[in-house]
Formats: sequence, C-alpha cells, structure tokens
Amino acid sequence: MNPPLKIAVAGLGTVGAGLVKLLASQAALLEARCGRRLVITAVSARDRHKKRDVDLSGFAWYDDPVEMAKSADAEAIVELIGGANGPAKALTEAAFVKGRHVVTANKAMLAHHGATLAAAAEGAGVTLGYEAAVAGGIPIVKALREGLAGNKIERVYGILNGTCNYILTVMRESGKSFEDVLADAQKKGYAEADPSLDVDGVDAAHKLAVLTSLAFGTAMDFEAVSVAGIRNVSPMDLEYAGELGFRIKLLAIGRRTPRGIEQRVHPCMIPAGIPLARVDGVFNAVMVDGDFAGNTVYVGRGAGQFPTASAVASDLVDLARGVRSPVFGVPAGKLAKLVVSPMAEHRGRYYIRLMVRDQPGVIADVSAALRDERVSLESMLQRGRSKTKAVPVVLTTHETVEAAMLRALDRIGRLEAVLEPPCMIRIEEL
Amino acid sequence: MNPPLKIAVAGLGTVGAGLVKLLASQAALLEARCGRRLVITAVSARDRHKKRDVDLSGFAWYDDPVEMAKSADAEAIVELIGGANGPAKALTEAAFVKGRHVVTANKAMLAHHGATLAAAAEGAGVTLGYEAAVAGGIPIVKALREGLAGNKIERVYGILNGTCNYILTVMRESGKSFEDVLADAQKKGYAEADPSLDVDGVDAAHKLAVLTSLAFGTAMDFEAVSVAGIRNVSPMDLEYAGELGFRIKLLAIGRRTPRGIEQRVHPCMIPAGIPLARVDGVFNAVMVDGDFAGNTVYVGRGAGQFPTASAVASDLVDLARGVRSPVFGVPAGKLAKLVVSPMAEHRGRYYIRLMVRDQPGVIADVSAALRDERVSLESMLQRGRSKTKAVPVVLTTHETVEAAMLRALDRIGRLEAVLEPPCMIRIEEL
Repeated sequence: MNPPLKIAVAGLGTVGAGLVKLLASQAALLEARCGRRLVITAVSARDRHKKRDVDLSGFAWYDDPVEMAKSADAEAIVELIGGANGPAKALTEAAFVKGRHVVTANKAMLAHHGATLAAAAEGAGVTLGYEAAVAGGIPIVKALREGLAGNKIERVYGILNGTCNYILTVMRESGKSFEDVLADAQKKGYAEADPSLDVDGVDAAHKLAVLTSLAFGTAMDFEAVSVAGIRNVSPMDLEYAGELGFRIKLLAIGRRTPRGIEQRVHPCMIPAGIPLARVDGVFNAVMVDGDFAGNTVYVGRGAGQFPTASAVASDLVDLARGVRSPVFGVPAGKLAKLVVSPMAEHRGRYYIRLMVRDQPGVIADVSAALRDERVSLESMLQRGRSKTKAVPVVLTTHETVEAAMLRALDRIGRLEAVLEPPCMIRIEEL
Repeated sequence: MNPPLKIAVAGLGTVGAGLVKLLASQAALLEARCGRRLVITAVSARDRHKKRDVDLSGFAWYDDPVEMAKSADAEAIVELIGGANGPAKALTEAAFVKGRHVVTANKAMLAHHGATLAAAAEGAGVTLGYEAAVAGGIPIVKALREGLAGNKIERVYGILNGTCNYILTVMRESGKSFEDVLADAQKKGYAEADPSLDVDGVDAAHKLAVLTSLAFGTAMDFEAVSVAGIRNVSPMDLEYAGELGFRIKLLAIGRRTPRGIEQRVHPCMIPAGIPLARVDGVFNAVMVDGDFAGNTVYVGRGAGQFPTASAVASDLVDLARGVRSPVFGVPAGKLAKLVVSPMAEHRGRYYIRLMVRDQPGVIADVSAALRDERVSLESMLQRGRSKTKAVPVVLTTHETVEAAMLRALDRIGRLEAVLEPPCMIRIEEL
C-alpha cells in the first residue's frame, strides 16, 4: 500500500466542513480509486471554538493558515478561505515555497493572480488545483484542460452564478422586483448578506477570467472583463423578454474574435427555446465550442457544500493518483498575453427599454437618434398609455456596433421626454 | 524538448481519417499543451490503395494491424477497427504484451472484454484509453473516472445512440413510420446499411456496460444488460406520448438498487418538460447522479468523424502528459462482480398500447387481467371507433412490478379481441 496523501485544510466554512465530511464518508471508495488513503492531518480557521458539525479532534490545529501551509505534516494544502489577496494568497505562495501542492476554490485569487501562481507552482514542481473555483460540482476545468485538449476552443460561455440565476428565475416566475427577491434569497441563504460580488457580476467575471485563460491559453486579465450585473433588470424587462420569445440570463461569455479575446458578463436576452434558457434556479451551465468536438454542454449545481467539496476531492484524487496537467492547460510561461477585443467594437442586437412621457414626437426623436448612428430598428412596442405617468417603449435592433448603440443611447437618454436612463440588454445569438 | 509521442493507427475509416486530420491541424497546439509533439508513425487498414482524403505518405504502412501493434515504432496504438473480437482484440493484446498503450473507440470490445483487457494493460504497466467509445465528443469517461471521483455514483443514464435519437426525433416531427425514417437516415449516412446494432439497442448497451463499470466499480457484464430497441415504436405511440405529456427516447440506464445493479436499454416515456426530452437529433446526453456533486449533465455530439477524433486525441494528450488513472476507475483486480438486479423485479409505471376489435367487453377483459396481477390503472384512452379495423386502446399504469406487468400482458395478448401483440413502453421518472 502506498503512503496516504496527507492534506491540510485552511478554512472551515461551508465548503471546508463539506470536504471533511466527504473525505470521511468516502474513505474506502477513495482508497480503492487512488490506491492510497486521503487523510486530513491539519486544519486552520479563524475561530477554534466555533461550534461545527464536524469532528476536528483528529487534526492538528493551526491558528495561522500560512504557518500551517509551511509546517503542517501535509503534501497538499486546501485553500478555502477566499479573497484575492490576504491569507489565501500568502498561504498559497508559502505552500509552493515549501514544495506543497495547493487545491483551491478561490476564483478571485485566480482571476487576479492565476498566471503568477501557476508559474510559482511550476517552478516548485508542484501543482495548483482549482476545479472547485468554477461551476461547483461540474468538472468543467478538467473537461477544458484534458477532455477537450484536442480542440482549439472558439467560445466558452454559460451561467456561472447561481445566485443571479436564482433571482432572475424567481423574478420571472413571481413578477416581483429585484430587491424583494434578493431579500428573500438572503433569508433562504441563497444570497450573501453583502450580495454585491454576486449580483454585480463580479463572481461570474472571476470565473470567466479563469475559463478564458484555460480555453484560449492566455494569461488571465481580469481588468479586461466587461462586467454588468442584474440590479437594473426589472420585472417589466422579464415580461417583455417573454413576449419577444426570450429569457433573460446573466451570461459570462469568452470568445475569440478577429480582434482578440472578448470577455463579458452581463444580462442577455437568449431565445426561450434553447436548452440554456431552461437552466433555472441555482444551476450552472457551461457551453464550450471546440473546433473538433463541436458544442458540448455541462450542467450541474454551481455551488453548495457538497458539490464544491466534490470538486475539491477530484483535485485531491488527481494528486493522490499522480495525475498532473499544466495548471492552465499550457506551461505558465507559454500563456499568451491576452489581446482584448474592445467592447466598443462588439457587434450584436440590442433590446432597449425607455420610460417616456406619452406625447407626440417622442418616437420620432428616438428614431432620429438611432438613424443618425445607423442603428437599424427591428421592432418597437408601445403598450401603455398614460397622461400622468411614464410609459415603457421597447425597441429591438438589428445587428449593430456597440459604440454606435451607446452613442445613440446617450443622445436618447438626454431627450426631454425620456424620464429614466435607458435600459439596454444585449440580445445573444447562441 | 521531450521526445515526441509516437502513435500507430489501426483502421482508417471515418474516425481514423479524422484523427489524422486532427493531429495535423492541431500540431502546434498539442505540442504546447503536452510539452511534446504527437506524431503518427505508422498506419494500417484493409486496403492500401483505397482513395482517402488524407495524406498517408509520411507513415509506415502495415497490412496486418497486429503486426503493427507489435513492431511499429510507436508507444501508443490507436485501435479504430471495431468489433468485439478479431483483429481489434488481437492487436490490443499484442500491444500490451509489447508494453504499448492502446487507445480505442471500440465499445463492443470493452463491453465484452473490458475487465480482462484492463487487467492485461495493468499487468504490462500501460494504459487503455477509451474516451471515444462512449458519447463521442463528450468527455464523459474522464468526468466519471476523475472529475466525479469523490462521489459514490447512484445512477448513470442517458441518450447514447444518436441514430436512434435521430430516428425517433424525425418520426415524432414527421409522423412517418420507423421503416421510412430509417431508409431516409441510411440515405443521409446517419444510419448504417445494416442498422441492427444501432436500432436494436446493442450499441447503446455496449456503451452502458462501459459506463456502469466505471460508475459502480464493477466488472462489465454485457449479458446482464436488458436490451430492447426502437423497431416497435410506432408513430401512434409518439403521438400518444405527446398527448400524455411525454417524449419517447431510447435511454440507457445504469442504477444501483437494493437488489444490485440494474442495466437496461429500452424506449422510455419521459416527461416532455425535462431537459433530456429536448436532446434531439444526433446529440447524446449523459446524466450522472453522484452523492456529493448531485446530478450533472453532459451533452454533445455522440458520433461523427471530428467529435470522435477529439475524444481519441484527449486520450493521446493524457498519454503524452503522463496522466494515468486506473482504466475503470479502480485497479482491474478490484472491480467487483456485478450483482444483477433482475428486470423481473424492476418497479415502474407502464404505457401499454393494444390494437383491439371494437366490441363490448374488451376493456372489461383487459381490466380483469390487470386486476388479477394487482396492476393498477392510471389512465385509459380509447379514441377511434371502427366496425372493421383494429382500434388502439392506450393504458398507463401506476407503479408496479415488471413481472406482474408481463404476466398481465401475456394474458391480454391472448385475448381473442386483441389483434396484435401489445406494445409496452416503460415510463421513466427522472
């Protein structure tokens, strides 16, 4: 029998506790699959005396995770603290210096420092596993890095934030406002007390930066991700989307274009009939377009204690079995500089909702602004009539360039009869 | 630079030619990803002089694939000949004896000899890759063996045969008969001249035997798979399915039950609203229920030159990178004997279509047969009326035991007013 793989776990929140449970309950199975045992030897968390539903008595305790990464009796350090910098990054770097592998669920750290950390791991002859950082229980990192390794990837996209997807799903089903549904999601534990990382699209953007690096062999460039969240999506937009044959989803999209790599996270109108439109609630879905495999789709739970623990475990199994691939698919030194395809040059169709004073001439003014930017209208809907209140006008355009669209919207937003900033949602052809 | 991975390819049909093209067009990409080149050194096929759209001039030619497996200048032999026995098996065994890896797309060979071949590979210190054997371009083997390795798998199921899925999709959309749609599919190249392996469910059963072995850690037992194909599905059944809120799909299902492992391939009625019901045409879909990851779903092209070549390439990348996992997830010697859960003890709901003479008393006789076997009716439809022709009667049952259902059907089939053998389709709750 081979010696066990000794593991030290930093961070005992939801996922950390889930991992402790998984390694206990699957011990025999994992031993059969790896030819050796997977054994936690040490743990570290902020509060030693916090009540937890897992038994930590068999593990060495460290108050300082960085110290644990340096000196625990462990080959692999699992980082579940989170945050782009701070102790998470410090312990990861310390582990590499000591020649220890790191497995992490930390997309923020990877989005900001992924290429540097991969280089450090490589230099130390160890590896950095991060299956848990993207799309929870879905083994999408492995699919991209190994399963689709024969493909040039053209596009990787999907629903990467379960909180947003849950909120949009409930908003659509209930007609309630973003604020009401968010408050409810917070009560149920589906949204954080501070929801901004999720609802502003930042979490999805972190994950996208990781996926694009992996898919395109480019060094991650988080600043280059164009990000918009779901705060401005109104029940009205969800209703109009339905009427126009669309669903609204927060998508993260990484794509090769002739100009470079496009990375964007924003609400999208997508055809209601396609499978992605039916991925609802807390589920995640990732679609990959490869030049040989074609389009493949991966769906599952994007977060939660057990799915995320499952992903961490898969990285530990790889370590135990001696399975090693380059962290982001190619050696860190060969990650190309990401050439950014500017959003201003993005081409697509647009959904626009205006709240206007119901008076003659408004549509003429709006149409003129679009015409002057050569934005061609596809449809226009003006349903309500009111002498006193703002009424919605909904437009969809034919394909146009983003910069032109934004110039037109700027002018439209300054029209005297347009009473709120225009709401713009990109229509995505998938 | 590491020395190249030298590859010999046996079989130059659709997939073999696809692989030659893939390795040529992705050469730089693969070299970056593997840190070494992937180079074909030798090929073997039946007819050296057949016109092919790939250039073979750089490769050594072998008339005998077994001889090539033994003596070609290659570390890895790719087996794309097919067939459970014959040259495919002989060359695989010969390669192992010579300490060479084998990558295969051959589900028939694996379904019949998988455990033995895995043991031989292990004994020789080499590996047997077979990502291409199941679900084409979808990296489902890697997902099960590595990505979900932290999970006890409860069920693996899906649409594993694109030909059947295509035929059922077109039958539903066009109302045409099985025979007509099959003939059309043959013309288009979506079905083989001898379609029996596909339409009788054997191909899906081969793939299921591989997936169950991988999912449950059991030695494959192809004889234990309960198999029925789609020849008896009529346009009438597809229409009734729609009326009852179902779609008909040929599913392959592997499941743990308290009695053992259930393996079955047959047409199923599944709820029209679930994502699996919308996987149409030549697409495959695999769903996996893991105890930690929950349900994950994998969709993509299940066959075809390029998707299958993509899967072969992923195994070659693993070899080039030195990535090794046990062939079926655990060492061959630890594959458990598969305890079969007998189909007679299967519990489920059933759809039954009878063609009857329209006369008083038929329903009473049918009902009595069901009552005597304690099969409880959920619904009954009798639409048409005719003095001269058989009319359909459609029944659905509540959950019952298969053996009782079959006994009741036997008795019903012998009723004088029942003019054709009853058509029975299992209703699957997913």
